[in-house]
Amino acid sequence: MKKKLLVIKIGGSLIEDEKILDEFLFDFTKLEGLKILVHGGGKLATQLAGKLGIETKMNEGRRITDAETIKVITMVYGGLVNKTIVAKLQADNCNALGLSGADLNSIQSVKRPVADIDYGFVGDVEKVNSKMISLLLNNGISPVFCAITHDRKGQLLNTNADTIASEIAIALSQDFETDLYYCFEKQGVLMDVNDENSVIEHIDSKSYQQLKEEKIIADGMLPKLHNCFNALERNVSKVCIGSIKMINGQNQKYTTISL
Amino acid sequence: MKKKLLVIKIGGSLIEDEKILDEFLFDFTKLEGLKILVHGGGKLATQLAGKLGIETKMNEGRRITDAETIKVITMVYGGLVNKTIVAKLQADNCNALGLSGADLNSIQSVKRPVADIDYGFVGDVEKVNSKMISLLLNNGISPVFCAITHDRKGQLLNTNADTIASEIAIALSQDFETDLYYCFEKQGVLMDVNDENSVIEHIDSKSYQQLKEEKIIADGMLPKLHNCFNALERNVSKVCIGSIKMINGQNQKYTTISL
Repeated sequence: MKKKLLVIKIGGSLIEDEKILDEFLFDFTKLEGLKILVHGGGKLATQLAGKLGIETKMNEGRRITDAETIKVITMVYGGLVNKTIVAKLQADNCNALGLSGADLNSIQSVKRPVADIDYGFVGDVEKVNSKMISLLLNNGISPVFCAITHDRKGQLLNTNADTIASEIAIALSQDFETDLYYCFEKQGVLMDVNDENSVIEHIDSKSYQQLKEEKIIADGMLPKLHNCFNALERNVSKVCIGSIKMINGQNQKYTTISL
Repeated sequence: MKKKLLVIKIGGSLIEDEKILDEFLFDFTKLEGLKILVHGGGKLATQLAGKLGIETKMNEGRRITDAETIKVITMVYGGLVNKTIVAKLQADNCNALGLSGADLNSIQSVKRPVADIDYGFVGDVEKVNSKMISLLLNNGISPVFCAITHDRKGQLLNTNADTIASEIAIALSQDFETDLYYCFEKQGVLMDVNDENSVIEHIDSKSYQQLKEEKIIADGMLPKLHNCFNALERNVSKVCIGSIKMINGQNQKYTTISL
Protein backbone atom coordinates (compact mmCIF):
# COMPACT_ATOMS: atom_id res chain seq x y z
CA MET A 1 0.00 0.00 0.00
CA LYS A 2 1.19 3.49 -0.85
CA LYS A 3 2.01 5.90 1.96
CA LYS A 4 -0.18 8.97 2.35
CA LEU A 5 1.23 12.36 1.30
CA LEU A 6 -0.28 15.82 1.84
CA VAL A 7 0.57 18.61 -0.61
CA ILE A 8 -0.61 21.91 0.83
CA LYS A 9 -0.51 25.24 -0.95
CA ILE A 10 -0.90 28.48 0.99
CA GLY A 11 -1.59 31.86 -0.50
CA GLY A 12 -3.47 35.08 -0.04
CA SER A 13 -3.45 36.86 3.29
CA LEU A 14 -2.30 33.64 5.00
CA ILE A 15 1.24 34.71 4.05
CA GLU A 16 1.03 38.46 4.52
CA ASP A 17 -0.31 38.53 8.08
CA GLU A 18 2.34 37.27 10.52
CA LYS A 19 -0.14 36.15 13.16
CA ILE A 20 -2.28 34.19 10.70
CA LEU A 21 0.84 32.65 9.14
CA ASP A 22 2.15 31.57 12.56
CA GLU A 23 -1.17 29.92 13.37
CA PHE A 24 -1.22 28.15 10.02
CA LEU A 25 2.37 26.92 10.39
CA PHE A 26 1.71 25.63 13.89
CA ASP A 27 -1.26 23.65 12.55
CA PHE A 28 0.95 22.40 9.69
CA THR A 29 3.58 21.05 12.11
CA LYS A 30 0.87 19.05 13.88
CA LEU A 31 -0.25 17.21 10.73
CA GLU A 32 0.95 13.64 10.87
CA GLY A 33 2.81 11.84 8.12
CA LEU A 34 4.49 13.05 4.96
CA LYS A 35 3.80 16.61 3.86
CA ILE A 36 4.91 19.24 1.37
CA LEU A 37 4.20 22.97 1.60
CA VAL A 38 3.99 25.29 -1.42
CA HIS A 39 3.74 29.06 -1.02
CA GLY A 40 3.37 32.17 -3.12
CA GLY A 41 4.05 35.69 -1.89
CA GLY A 42 2.81 37.89 -4.71
CA LYS A 43 1.69 40.90 -2.69
CA LEU A 44 4.99 41.09 -0.80
CA ALA A 45 6.85 41.02 -4.13
CA THR A 46 4.64 43.84 -5.42
CA GLN A 47 5.43 45.85 -2.27
CA LEU A 48 9.20 45.40 -2.62
CA ALA A 49 9.07 46.19 -6.35
CA GLY A 50 7.20 49.38 -5.48
CA LYS A 51 9.85 50.43 -2.95
CA LEU A 52 12.56 49.82 -5.56
CA GLY A 53 10.67 51.81 -8.19
CA ILE A 54 10.02 48.77 -10.36
CA GLU A 55 6.61 48.90 -12.01
CA THR A 56 4.40 45.82 -11.52
CA LYS A 57 2.67 44.81 -14.74
CA MET A 58 -0.11 42.22 -14.70
CA ASN A 59 -2.11 40.60 -17.48
CA GLU A 60 -5.28 38.75 -16.48
CA GLY A 61 -3.98 38.32 -12.94
CA ARG A 62 -0.60 37.05 -14.12
CA ARG A 63 2.61 38.92 -13.46
CA ILE A 64 4.75 40.06 -16.37
CA THR A 65 8.24 39.17 -15.19
CA ASP A 66 11.07 41.23 -16.65
CA ALA A 67 14.76 40.94 -15.66
CA GLU A 68 14.38 43.20 -12.61
CA THR A 69 11.14 41.56 -11.50
CA ILE A 70 12.58 38.02 -11.49
CA LYS A 71 15.28 39.33 -9.13
CA VAL A 72 12.62 40.79 -6.81
CA ILE A 73 10.68 37.52 -6.90
CA THR A 74 13.80 35.50 -6.15
CA MET A 75 14.54 37.74 -3.17
CA VAL A 76 11.00 37.70 -1.78
CA TYR A 77 9.76 34.17 -2.56
CA GLY A 78 13.09 32.28 -2.44
CA GLY A 79 14.63 34.38 0.33
CA LEU A 80 12.40 36.26 2.74
CA VAL A 81 9.16 34.24 2.65
CA ASN A 82 10.72 30.80 2.20
CA LYS A 83 13.38 31.13 4.91
CA THR A 84 10.98 32.78 7.36
CA ILE A 85 8.58 29.85 6.97
CA VAL A 86 11.38 27.29 7.31
CA ALA A 87 12.73 28.90 10.49
CA LYS A 88 9.26 28.95 12.05
CA LEU A 89 8.60 25.29 11.14
CA GLN A 90 11.97 24.24 12.55
CA ALA A 91 11.11 26.04 15.80
CA ASP A 92 8.11 23.72 16.07
CA ASN A 93 10.18 20.59 15.37
CA CYS A 94 9.15 20.13 11.75
CA ASN A 95 12.25 19.25 9.70
CA ALA A 96 11.58 21.74 6.90
CA LEU A 97 13.79 22.34 3.87
CA GLY A 98 13.16 25.33 1.62
CA LEU A 99 13.44 24.77 -2.12
CA SER A 100 13.09 26.52 -5.42
CA GLY A 101 12.69 24.37 -8.52
CA ALA A 102 16.40 24.91 -9.21
CA ASP A 103 17.42 23.22 -5.93
CA LEU A 104 18.03 19.52 -6.61
CA ASN A 105 16.69 20.28 -10.10
CA SER A 106 13.36 19.59 -8.43
CA ILE A 107 11.14 21.43 -10.94
CA GLN A 108 12.31 22.09 -14.47
CA SER A 109 10.26 24.40 -16.64
CA VAL A 110 10.39 26.06 -20.03
CA LYS A 111 10.22 29.81 -20.55
CA ARG A 112 6.77 30.60 -21.87
CA PRO A 113 6.94 31.28 -25.61
CA VAL A 114 6.00 34.81 -26.61
CA ALA A 115 2.53 34.87 -28.22
CA ASP A 116 0.27 37.94 -27.92
CA ILE A 117 1.84 38.75 -24.59
CA ASP A 118 5.50 38.45 -23.57
CA TYR A 119 5.32 37.26 -19.99
CA GLY A 120 9.09 37.48 -19.68
CA PHE A 121 10.78 35.14 -17.20
CA VAL A 122 7.75 32.95 -16.58
CA GLY A 123 8.14 29.17 -16.67
CA ASP A 124 5.67 26.44 -17.59
CA VAL A 125 6.43 23.22 -15.69
CA GLU A 126 8.00 20.45 -17.79
CA LYS A 127 9.25 17.95 -15.25
CA VAL A 128 9.06 17.36 -11.50
CA ASN A 129 11.98 15.38 -10.06
CA SER A 130 9.93 13.00 -7.93
CA LYS A 131 12.98 10.85 -7.18
CA MET A 132 14.72 13.67 -5.30
CA ILE A 133 11.54 14.83 -3.56
CA SER A 134 10.80 11.24 -2.46
CA LEU A 135 14.33 10.95 -1.06
CA LEU A 136 13.62 13.95 1.15
CA LEU A 137 10.20 12.69 2.27
CA ASN A 138 11.54 9.23 3.06
CA ASN A 139 14.13 10.82 5.34
CA GLY A 140 11.56 12.67 7.42
CA ILE A 141 12.07 15.99 5.64
CA SER A 142 9.18 18.35 4.76
CA PRO A 143 9.98 20.24 1.55
CA VAL A 144 8.78 23.86 1.41
CA PHE A 145 8.56 25.07 -2.19
CA CYS A 146 8.48 28.67 -3.32
CA ALA A 147 6.97 29.62 -6.69
CA ILE A 148 10.25 29.62 -8.61
CA THR A 149 11.44 27.08 -11.18
CA HIS A 150 14.40 26.98 -13.59
CA ASP A 151 15.09 26.04 -17.20
CA ARG A 152 18.22 24.03 -16.37
CA LYS A 153 20.20 26.42 -18.52
CA GLY A 154 20.89 28.70 -15.56
CA GLN A 155 17.76 30.86 -15.69
CA LEU A 156 15.32 31.14 -12.79
CA LEU A 157 11.66 31.44 -13.80
CA ASN A 158 8.49 32.63 -12.08
CA THR A 159 5.81 29.90 -11.96
CA ASN A 160 2.30 30.07 -10.53
CA ALA A 161 2.26 28.52 -7.03
CA ASP A 162 -1.09 26.75 -7.60
CA THR A 163 0.39 25.06 -10.67
CA ILE A 164 3.53 24.05 -8.79
CA ALA A 165 1.38 22.44 -6.09
CA SER A 166 -0.71 20.46 -8.58
CA GLU A 167 2.32 19.37 -10.66
CA ILE A 168 4.12 18.16 -7.52
CA ALA A 169 1.01 16.31 -6.35
CA ILE A 170 0.64 14.67 -9.78
CA ALA A 171 4.30 13.59 -9.98
CA LEU A 172 4.36 12.23 -6.43
CA SER A 173 1.08 10.31 -6.82
CA GLN A 174 3.12 7.62 -8.60
CA ASP A 175 4.75 6.73 -5.27
CA PHE A 176 2.29 8.09 -2.70
CA GLU A 177 -1.44 8.35 -2.11
CA THR A 178 -1.50 12.09 -2.59
CA ASP A 179 -4.04 14.63 -1.30
CA LEU A 180 -3.85 18.20 -2.57
CA TYR A 181 -5.14 21.08 -0.43
CA TYR A 182 -5.42 24.68 -1.56
CA CYS A 183 -5.52 26.79 1.60
CA PHE A 184 -6.42 30.45 1.75
CA GLU A 185 -8.21 32.86 4.03
CA LYS A 186 -11.73 31.74 3.05
CA GLN A 187 -13.66 28.60 4.01
CA GLY A 188 -13.86 27.42 0.39
CA VAL A 189 -15.25 28.39 -3.00
CA LEU A 190 -18.18 30.72 -2.28
CA MET A 191 -21.55 31.02 -4.04
CA ASP A 192 -21.56 34.69 -2.98
CA VAL A 193 -18.14 36.30 -2.44
CA ASN A 194 -19.67 38.59 0.17
CA ASP A 195 -21.05 35.74 2.25
CA GLU A 196 -18.40 33.69 4.06
CA ASN A 197 -20.99 31.03 4.85
CA SER A 198 -21.97 30.37 1.24
CA VAL A 199 -19.35 27.62 0.75
CA ILE A 200 -19.99 25.28 -2.20
CA GLU A 201 -19.22 21.92 -0.62
CA HIS A 202 -18.85 19.87 -3.80
CA ILE A 203 -17.83 20.79 -7.30
CA ASP A 204 -17.58 18.22 -10.09
CA SER A 205 -16.88 18.70 -13.81
CA LYS A 206 -20.56 19.12 -14.56
CA SER A 207 -21.41 21.66 -11.85
CA TYR A 208 -18.14 23.45 -12.67
CA GLN A 209 -19.38 24.16 -16.22
CA GLN A 210 -22.59 25.57 -14.82
CA LEU A 211 -20.83 27.70 -12.17
CA LYS A 212 -18.59 29.10 -14.89
CA GLU A 213 -21.54 29.93 -17.15
CA GLU A 214 -23.31 31.66 -14.27
CA LYS A 215 -20.06 33.58 -13.56
CA ILE A 216 -20.12 32.37 -9.96
CA ILE A 217 -16.63 31.01 -10.55
CA ALA A 218 -14.55 33.66 -12.29
CA ASP A 219 -11.19 35.49 -12.32
CA GLY A 220 -8.41 33.91 -10.24
CA MET A 221 -10.63 31.00 -9.22
CA LEU A 222 -10.67 29.71 -12.83
CA PRO A 223 -6.98 28.73 -13.11
CA LYS A 224 -7.15 27.31 -9.55
CA LEU A 225 -10.06 25.05 -10.51
CA HIS A 226 -8.25 24.12 -13.72
CA ASN A 227 -5.30 22.94 -11.59
CA CYS A 228 -7.69 20.97 -9.35
CA PHE A 229 -9.27 19.04 -12.24
CA ASN A 230 -5.89 18.51 -13.89
CA ALA A 231 -4.62 16.92 -10.65
CA LEU A 232 -7.66 14.62 -10.31
CA GLU A 233 -7.39 13.51 -13.95
CA ARG A 234 -3.77 12.58 -13.32
CA ASN A 235 -4.21 10.34 -10.27
CA VAL A 236 -4.18 12.70 -7.32
CA SER A 237 -6.49 11.06 -4.74
CA LYS A 238 -8.27 14.06 -3.31
CA VAL A 239 -8.40 17.81 -3.99
CA CYS A 240 -9.92 20.37 -1.60
CA ILE A 241 -10.08 24.16 -1.29
CA GLY A 242 -10.58 25.94 2.03
CA SER A 243 -8.90 27.05 5.23
CA ILE A 244 -6.08 25.08 6.90
CA LYS A 245 -8.58 23.84 9.50
CA MET A 246 -10.20 21.57 6.88
CA ILE A 247 -7.15 19.29 6.88
CA ASN A 248 -7.21 18.35 10.54
CA GLY A 249 -11.01 18.12 10.55
CA GLN A 250 -11.63 21.18 12.72
CA ASN A 251 -13.68 22.82 10.01
CA GLN A 252 -16.91 21.29 8.77
CA LYS A 253 -17.23 23.36 5.65
CA TYR A 254 -14.86 23.41 2.69
CA THR A 255 -14.96 22.67 -1.01
CA THR A 256 -14.18 19.17 -2.31
CA ILE A 257 -13.50 18.80 -6.01
CA SER A 258 -14.28 15.60 -7.92
CA LEU A 259 -14.27 14.63 -11.57
CA MET B 1 39.38 5.22 5.06
CA LYS B 2 37.39 8.43 5.19
CA LYS B 3 36.11 9.94 1.94
CA LYS B 4 37.53 13.29 0.88
CA LEU B 5 35.37 16.41 1.23
CA LEU B 6 36.05 19.91 -0.08
CA VAL B 7 34.50 22.88 1.75
CA ILE B 8 34.94 25.99 -0.39
CA LYS B 9 34.03 29.51 0.65
CA ILE B 10 33.71 32.28 -1.92
CA GLY B 11 33.56 35.95 -1.21
CA GLY B 12 34.66 39.34 -2.38
CA SER B 13 34.32 40.31 -6.02
CA LEU B 14 33.98 36.64 -6.97
CA ILE B 15 30.28 37.02 -6.18
CA GLU B 16 29.63 40.53 -7.44
CA ASP B 17 30.99 40.17 -10.97
CA GLU B 18 28.77 37.86 -13.01
CA LYS B 19 31.51 36.79 -15.43
CA ILE B 20 33.97 35.94 -12.66
CA LEU B 21 31.25 34.09 -10.73
CA ASP B 22 30.31 32.05 -13.81
CA GLU B 23 33.94 31.08 -14.34
CA PHE B 24 34.31 30.10 -10.70
CA LEU B 25 31.13 28.03 -10.71
CA PHE B 26 32.16 26.23 -13.88
CA ASP B 27 35.47 25.32 -12.20
CA PHE B 28 33.53 24.22 -9.10
CA THR B 29 31.36 21.83 -11.11
CA LYS B 30 34.50 20.18 -12.49
CA LEU B 31 35.93 19.36 -9.05
CA GLU B 32 35.59 15.66 -8.41
CA GLY B 33 34.13 14.11 -5.28
CA LEU B 34 32.12 15.53 -2.41
CA LYS B 35 31.94 19.29 -2.11
CA ILE B 36 30.19 22.07 -0.22
CA LEU B 37 30.04 25.72 -1.25
CA VAL B 38 29.62 28.61 1.21
CA HIS B 39 28.99 32.16 0.02
CA GLY B 40 28.60 35.64 1.40
CA GLY B 41 27.16 38.56 -0.53
CA GLY B 42 27.79 41.53 1.75
CA LYS B 43 28.24 44.22 -0.89
CA LEU B 44 25.04 43.25 -2.70
CA ALA B 45 23.15 43.46 0.60
CA THR B 46 24.62 46.91 1.22
CA GLN B 47 23.46 47.98 -2.26
CA LEU B 48 19.89 46.75 -1.72
CA ALA B 49 19.75 48.32 1.75
CA GLY B 50 20.85 51.61 0.17
CA LYS B 51 18.09 51.47 -2.45
CA LEU B 52 15.54 50.83 0.30
CA GLY B 53 16.86 53.71 2.40
CA ILE B 54 18.14 51.41 5.15
CA GLU B 55 21.37 52.66 6.66
CA THR B 56 24.25 50.15 6.76
CA LYS B 57 26.09 50.27 10.08
CA MET B 58 29.39 48.44 10.53
CA ASN B 59 31.63 47.93 13.55
CA GLU B 60 35.18 46.72 12.88
CA GLY B 61 34.10 45.25 9.55
CA ARG B 62 31.08 43.51 11.04
CA ARG B 63 27.54 44.40 10.08
CA ILE B 64 25.11 45.61 12.74
CA THR B 65 21.95 43.72 11.85
CA ASP B 66 18.68 45.35 12.90
CA ALA B 67 15.19 44.00 12.10
CA GLU B 68 15.11 45.58 8.63
CA THR B 69 18.67 44.53 7.81
CA ILE B 70 18.08 40.84 8.58
CA LYS B 71 15.21 40.96 6.07
CA VAL B 72 17.51 42.47 3.43
CA ILE B 73 20.16 39.83 4.16
CA THR B 74 17.60 37.04 3.93
CA MET B 75 16.44 38.37 0.57
CA VAL B 76 19.93 38.86 -0.88
CA TYR B 77 21.93 35.95 0.60
CA GLY B 78 19.14 33.38 0.95
CA GLY B 79 17.22 34.41 -2.16
CA LEU B 80 19.03 36.21 -4.96
CA VAL B 81 22.63 35.07 -4.52
CA ASN B 82 21.89 31.53 -3.32
CA LYS B 83 19.29 30.64 -5.96
CA THR B 84 21.31 32.25 -8.77
CA ILE B 85 24.32 30.11 -7.83
CA VAL B 86 22.20 26.96 -7.54
CA ALA B 87 20.57 27.51 -10.97
CA LYS B 88 23.99 28.02 -12.59
CA LEU B 89 25.45 24.88 -10.94
CA GLN B 90 22.44 22.81 -12.01
CA ALA B 91 22.95 24.05 -15.58
CA ASP B 92 26.42 22.48 -15.44
CA ASN B 93 25.10 19.17 -14.03
CA CYS B 94 26.12 19.74 -10.43
CA ASN B 95 23.26 18.62 -8.16
CA ALA B 96 23.26 21.73 -5.97
CA LEU B 97 20.90 22.43 -3.08
CA GLY B 98 20.77 25.89 -1.53
CA LEU B 99 20.53 26.09 2.24
CA SER B 100 20.38 28.52 5.09
CA GLY B 101 21.19 27.24 8.55
CA ALA B 102 17.44 27.03 9.21
CA ASP B 103 16.92 24.51 6.40
CA LEU B 104 17.17 20.99 7.86
CA ASN B 105 18.20 22.74 11.07
CA SER B 106 21.66 22.51 9.50
CA ILE B 107 23.31 25.31 11.51
CA GLN B 108 21.94 26.41 14.85
CA SER B 109 23.35 29.53 16.42
CA VAL B 110 22.77 31.79 19.39
CA LYS B 111 22.04 35.50 19.10
CA ARG B 112 25.17 37.33 20.15
CA PRO B 113 24.75 38.74 23.67
CA VAL B 114 24.85 42.51 23.88
CA ALA B 115 28.15 43.71 25.34
CA ASP B 116 29.68 47.09 24.35
CA ILE B 117 28.04 46.78 20.96
CA ASP B 118 24.57 45.44 20.12
CA TYR B 119 25.12 43.60 16.86
CA GLY B 120 21.40 42.85 16.60
CA PHE B 121 20.36 39.73 14.73
CA VAL B 122 23.83 38.22 14.51
CA GLY B 123 24.32 34.56 15.39
CA ASP B 124 27.33 32.72 16.81
CA VAL B 125 27.37 29.09 15.66
CA GLU B 126 26.43 26.54 18.33
CA LYS B 127 25.86 23.34 16.40
CA VAL B 128 26.28 22.03 12.87
CA ASN B 129 23.92 19.18 11.95
CA SER B 130 26.53 16.94 10.32
CA LYS B 131 24.08 14.04 10.11
CA MET B 132 21.77 15.91 7.73
CA ILE B 133 24.64 17.38 5.70
CA SER B 134 26.23 13.91 5.36
CA LEU B 135 22.89 12.52 4.16
CA LEU B 136 22.93 15.07 1.34
CA LEU B 137 26.58 14.43 0.42
CA ASN B 138 26.10 10.66 0.43
CA ASN B 139 23.27 11.10 -2.08
CA GLY B 140 25.40 13.01 -4.57
CA ILE B 141 24.08 16.41 -3.53
CA SER B 142 26.33 19.51 -3.23
CA PRO B 143 25.03 21.81 -0.47
CA VAL B 144 25.36 25.56 -1.13
CA PHE B 145 25.20 27.51 2.13
CA CYS B 146 24.43 31.18 2.47
CA ALA B 147 25.59 33.14 5.52
CA ILE B 148 22.35 32.80 7.48
CA THR B 149 21.71 30.65 10.55
CA HIS B 150 18.81 30.39 13.00
CA ASP B 151 18.26 30.10 16.75
CA ARG B 152 15.68 27.29 16.43
CA LYS B 153 13.17 29.55 18.08
CA GLY B 154 12.03 30.94 14.74
CA GLN B 155 14.59 33.74 14.34
CA LEU B 156 16.97 33.96 11.37
CA LEU B 157 20.43 35.30 12.21
CA ASN B 158 23.29 36.80 10.20
CA THR B 159 26.52 34.80 10.59
CA ASN B 160 29.94 35.45 9.06
CA ALA B 161 30.41 33.25 5.97
CA ASP B 162 34.07 32.47 6.83
CA THR B 163 32.94 31.17 10.21
CA ILE B 164 30.16 29.09 8.67
CA ALA B 165 32.70 27.49 6.31
CA SER B 166 35.11 26.61 9.12
CA GLU B 167 32.37 25.33 11.45
CA ILE B 168 30.97 23.09 8.69
CA ALA B 169 34.47 21.81 7.86
CA ILE B 170 35.11 21.06 11.54
CA ALA B 171 31.81 19.23 12.07
CA LEU B 172 32.15 17.19 8.88
CA SER B 173 35.77 16.19 9.57
CA GLN B 174 34.38 13.54 11.94
CA ASP B 175 33.09 11.63 8.93
CA PHE B 176 35.22 12.94 6.07
CA GLU B 177 38.80 13.93 5.34
CA THR B 178 37.98 17.60 5.00
CA ASP B 179 39.89 20.32 3.15
CA LEU B 180 38.85 23.93 3.64
CA TYR B 181 39.50 26.52 0.92
CA TYR B 182 38.90 30.24 1.25
CA CYS B 183 38.60 31.60 -2.29
CA PHE B 184 38.64 35.24 -3.22
CA GLU B 185 39.89 37.48 -6.00
CA LYS B 186 43.53 37.42 -4.89
CA GLN B 187 46.17 34.68 -5.21
CA GLY B 188 46.54 34.36 -1.44
CA VAL B 189 47.57 36.33 1.64
CA LEU B 190 49.89 39.07 0.37
CA MET B 191 53.06 40.52 1.95
CA ASP B 192 52.26 43.77 0.14
CA VAL B 193 48.58 44.40 -0.64
CA ASN B 194 49.60 46.39 -3.70
CA ASP B 195 51.66 43.56 -5.19
CA GLU B 196 49.61 40.63 -6.45
CA ASN B 197 52.76 38.53 -6.72
CA SER B 198 53.77 38.87 -3.08
CA VAL B 199 51.85 35.76 -1.98
CA ILE B 200 52.92 34.31 1.38
CA GLU B 201 53.00 30.60 0.56
CA HIS B 202 53.02 29.24 4.12
CA ILE B 203 51.72 30.62 7.37
CA ASP B 204 52.03 28.73 10.66
CA SER B 205 51.13 29.79 14.21
CA LYS B 206 54.60 31.22 14.76
CA SER B 207 54.89 33.24 11.55
CA TYR B 208 51.27 34.36 12.05
CA GLN B 209 52.22 36.06 15.32
CA GLN B 210 55.05 37.85 13.60
CA LEU B 211 52.93 38.90 10.60
CA LYS B 212 50.36 40.31 13.02
CA GLU B 213 52.97 42.24 14.96
CA GLU B 214 54.38 43.70 11.75
CA LYS B 215 50.78 44.62 10.72
CA ILE B 216 51.20 42.72 7.46
CA ILE B 217 48.12 40.74 8.42
CA ALA B 218 45.43 43.14 9.60
CA ASP B 219 41.75 44.12 9.33
CA GLY B 220 39.47 41.54 7.71
CA MET B 221 42.32 39.07 7.27
CA LEU B 222 42.57 38.61 11.07
CA PRO B 223 39.19 36.88 11.64
CA LYS B 224 39.78 34.84 8.47
CA LEU B 225 43.10 33.56 9.82
CA HIS B 226 41.48 32.92 13.18
CA ASN B 227 38.93 30.69 11.42
CA CYS B 228 41.78 28.88 9.60
CA PHE B 229 43.68 28.02 12.79
CA ASN B 230 40.48 27.09 14.59
CA ALA B 231 39.70 24.60 11.81
CA LEU B 232 43.18 23.06 11.88
CA GLU B 233 43.10 22.71 15.66
CA ARG B 234 39.81 20.86 15.34
CA ASN B 235 40.82 18.17 12.83
CA VAL B 236 40.32 19.80 9.44
CA SER B 237 43.03 18.22 7.21
CA LYS B 238 44.08 21.17 5.14
CA VAL B 239 43.34 24.91 5.00
CA CYS B 240 44.28 27.19 2.09
CA ILE B 241 43.58 30.75 0.98
CA GLY B 242 43.74 31.87 -2.64
CA SER B 243 41.93 31.86 -5.98
CA ILE B 244 39.69 29.00 -7.13
CA LYS B 245 42.47 27.84 -9.46
CA MET B 246 44.49 26.61 -6.45
CA ILE B 247 42.06 23.73 -5.91
CA ASN B 248 42.43 22.07 -9.27
CA GLY B 249 46.16 22.73 -9.33
CA GLN B 250 46.13 25.34 -12.10
CA ASN B 251 47.67 27.93 -9.84
CA GLN B 252 51.13 27.51 -8.43
CA LYS B 253 50.88 30.21 -5.80
CA TYR B 254 48.50 30.32 -2.87
CA THR B 255 48.67 30.41 0.90
CA THR B 256 48.69 27.18 2.93
CA ILE B 257 48.02 27.45 6.65
CA SER B 258 49.46 25.01 9.16
CA LEU B 259 49.59 24.86 12.95
